[in-house]
Amino acid sequence: METRIMEGGRHPFVYGQRLVDPDKPTVLFYGHYDVQPVEPLDAWASDPFKPIVRDARIYARGAGDNKGQLYAQLMGINATLRVRGELPLNVKCIFEGEEESGSPNLESFVRKNRGLLNADLAYTSDGPVHESGRPMVVFGVRGLLYVELTARGAERDLHSGNWGGPSPNPAWELVRLLGTMKGPEGRITIAGFYDSVRMPTKQEKAAFGRIPLNKTSVARSLGLRLSQIPDPEVFYRKLMAEPTLNIAGIYGGYTGKGSKTVIPSSASVKMDMRLVPDQHPDDIFRKFQAHVKLHAPGIEVKRMSSTPTSRTPLTSQFAKPIREAVKDATGMEPVVYPSLGATLPDYVFTTVLGIPSIIVPYANIDESNHAPNENIKIENFVRGMKCCAAVMENLSRVSV
Amino acid sequence: METRIMEGGRHPFVYGQRLVDPDKPTVLFYGHYDVQPVEPLDAWASDPFKPIVRDARIYARGAGDNKGQLYAQLMGINATLRVRGELPLNVKCIFEGEEESGSPNLESFVRKNRGLLNADLAYTSDGPVHESGRPMVVFGVRGLLYVELTARGAERDLHSGNWGGPSPNPAWELVRLLGTMKGPEGRITIAGFYDSVRMPTKQEKAAFGRIPLNKTSVARSLGLRLSQIPDPEVFYRKLMAEPTLNIAGIYGGYTGKGSKTVIPSSASVKMDMRLVPDQHPDDIFRKFQAHVKLHAPGIEVKRMSSTPTSRTPLTSQFAKPIREAVKDATGMEPVVYPSLGATLPDYVFTTVLGIPSIIVPYANIDESNHAPNENIKIENFVRGMKCCAAVMENLSRVSV
Repeated sequence: METRIMEGGRHPFVYGQRLVDPDKPTVLFYGHYDVQPVEPLDAWASDPFKPIVRDARIYARGAGDNKGQLYAQLMGINATLRVRGELPLNVKCIFEGEEESGSPNLESFVRKNRGLLNADLAYTSDGPVHESGRPMVVFGVRGLLYVELTARGAERDLHSGNWGGPSPNPAWELVRLLGTMKGPEGRITIAGFYDSVRMPTKQEKAAFGRIPLNKTSVARSLGLRLSQIPDPEVFYRKLMAEPTLNIAGIYGGYTGKGSKTVIPSSASVKMDMRLVPDQHPDDIFRKFQAHVKLHAPGIEVKRMSSTPTSRTPLTSQFAKPIREAVKDATGMEPVVYPSLGATLPDYVFTTVLGIPSIIVPYANIDESNHAPNENIKIENFVRGMKCCAAVMENLSRVSV
Repeated sequence: METRIMEGGRHPFVYGQRLVDPDKPTVLFYGHYDVQPVEPLDAWASDPFKPIVRDARIYARGAGDNKGQLYAQLMGINATLRVRGELPLNVKCIFEGEEESGSPNLESFVRKNRGLLNADLAYTSDGPVHESGRPMVVFGVRGLLYVELTARGAERDLHSGNWGGPSPNPAWELVRLLGTMKGPEGRITIAGFYDSVRMPTKQEKAAFGRIPLNKTSVARSLGLRLSQIPDPEVFYRKLMAEPTLNIAGIYGGYTGKGSKTVIPSSASVKMDMRLVPDQHPDDIFRKFQAHVKLHAPGIEVKRMSSTPTSRTPLTSQFAKPIREAVKDATGMEPVVYPSLGATLPDYVFTTVLGIPSIIVPYANIDESNHAPNENIKIENFVRGMKCCAAVMENLSRVSV
C-alpha cells in the first residue's frame, strides 16, 4: 500500500491506499492506534506493553481496543494480496491517534481530505462481539449532547435554621427545573425534543425483535426483577431508536457522612442526551437552552461536548454481502444491530463524507478494554482476519 | 449555693440551687460548659485556652459560647447576693457538657429529675444579641427533623450509552419524588404536613413587623436583589412561624470535573425540616414516610435526628418583667423575638417540664462562636451580669 503520515491533530493520522480498479468498489477502513492509560499497573498479570500469549489469548494494552482488531484487518488485507496476487477491490485506510480522547480532530481532518478519503463504504472493527458470542453487523450509533446546569444562591452555604424559609434554595430550583423536563412514563417534555426523531424502519423494527436478549443477565446488571425487563423489540427500540435525557451526576450542598444543616450555595447537574437520527446536537441544545430560559432563567447552562448520530440503512446494498461474509468467516449467523446505544464519531463517514458505514466487531466479549489485562482471544483474532478477507471478497462483487 | 455533679451523660451535669422562699418564684438557669473544637489552631491570635484581654474583648474558646455568658449569669447571682445579703427569689442552675453534641442526654436527665429541676421559668443566655446591636428576648425555637433518602439502581454506575433508555435512573427517580413534595410557591405538598401548624398569635404577628431587618445586608447574604427581600412581617413569619423542607445536600453519579457518561448506581438527598408549634417530629416523620411510600416505594428513608419545637407565649407573665429588666440593664429596648429560626433543645423546659422558657443572649454579634478567635466584649459581659441581676429582681415581684 502507499502509506503516509498526515498531520491534523495532536497525534498524526496514518493513511494508506491500494487502488486496483476504478470500476470496483472502494472500502475505507477506519481504526485507531491510541490506547487508554494502563493504570492500575498492579492489576496486570504481565507487562501491558509486552504482548504475551496465555490461555489462547493475546494479553496487551490495545489487544482488543483497537490495535489488535486493526491489525487483524491489515492481516486480512495482506493475506488476500498474497493468496490472490492482488486485492479484489480498492482499499483505503485511515487510522487516528485520538479516538480515546473523543476524536477532537477527526471531523476537520475528514473535511479537509474529502477527496483522498472518498469511498463507497466505511468499514470499522471495534468493540466486542454480541454477548451471546455471535458476531454483529452494526449500522449506526446514537449521538451525544453533554451539558452541565448550575443553580446559584448565596456565596457560601447558609445555616438552614437561621435562613430557612426566607431564603431560596438553588438545589430546589434545580430539582424543580428537572421536574419540568420529564413527564409521566419518562417522556422528555422539552418543546420540540422529539420533532426530528425518525421512526425506525420496518426492517429495523424486525431487527430489534431478533437480537438475543439475556433477560436474566440484564436484570442482574440493572438491579431489576426479571419481570421488569421488556421483550427485545421494546428493549432495543429504546436503546437504538429513542433519545435519552440522562442525569449522569447531581451534586450540591453537604454530601459527606451524617448530617449538616445548610442551604447549598449552588447545585449542579451533569446530563447526557443520547440522540437518534435525525436529531442534531446543535438543534437539541437550542431547544434545551430555551426550555431552561423559560422555566428557570437564572440557571446556567454549559455545553460540554457533542457528537452527531449516524445511521446506515439496513437495506444498504453492502449489508447483505457483509452479513454473508461474516457468516462464512465465523460459521455463525451475525446479529443485525441497527445501532449501538453508545456514541462513536461515525457521522464523519455517513454525514461528512456521505457514505454508508458498517461496523463489525471482532473482539471477545471479555476483552477488558480500558481495563487491566486487556486481551483478544486468538480465535477472535483469526476470525477477524478471515472476516476482513471475506468482506472484501463479497464487496468486490457489488456494482457501484 | 448547694451544688452537685450529677451523672447522666458522657459528661456530667452540674446542678446548683439556693432556695430562699417557697412563696417566691423559682428560676432555672440553663447553660453549657462544653465547647467546640479549636481547630484550625493556626488561625488563633492567642492560645484558645488562655483567656486574654485585647481591644476590650476577652479572647478564649467558650468566651461567647457558652462559658462566658454562663459565667456572667453566675456573677450576676453572686453580686446580687453580696449586695442584698440574700437572693430575691429561688434559683436553680443546670449546666450540661454535651450541648455542642446535640444534647443527647438532656431530655432523659430532665425526665429523671423533674422534681429537682421544677421551676416557674427557665432562663438561658446563649448566642449573640440582635445584629442591630440591640438585646433580644427570645421566646422559642423551631424544631428539626433530618432525613436522608436514597434511590438505588444497579450495583455499579452503568455506561449511559450502553444502557440509557432501557435502564431506570435512580437520580431521576429521586428528582421525580422531590418534585412531588413541593407545589407552586414552594408550598410543601406532603399530606397533613401543615395540619398541626399553630397560627401565630396577634402579639407574635405584631412582633414580626417590629424586628429590625437590614434588607441590604440580607440581600447580600442571600445573593438576591434588594427588591426580592420581603418586609419584616413576611420575612420573620417565614423564619419563625412556618416550617421548611430544605435540601441540605444532594448527590449521585459523576460529580467530578468535566464529563462522564454514566447512569448513577444510586442517588441521595439530605433534607432538614424546621418545624414550628405544634408540629412534632415523630408525626411529621410518619407523614414523610407515607409520602415516599406512596410516590416512590423503592426509595429508602433514613431518619437521622430530630428535636421538637418550643414556644413560650409572648403574653407569659414573665415576659414584661424580663423585657423591662433587659432594658434597664442595657439602656436599649430589647427586640422581642418570638422564635429563633434555628433549633435548640428548649422543649425539655417547655414540654418536658411544662414551664415557660426565655432566652436572652448577652454576646456580641461578632463573637466568632465555633470559630477561631472566639471572644466576648467586656461591655457585653458586664451587661450580661447586670441583666441577670435585673431579671432576678423583676422576676421576684411576679406572684406565682
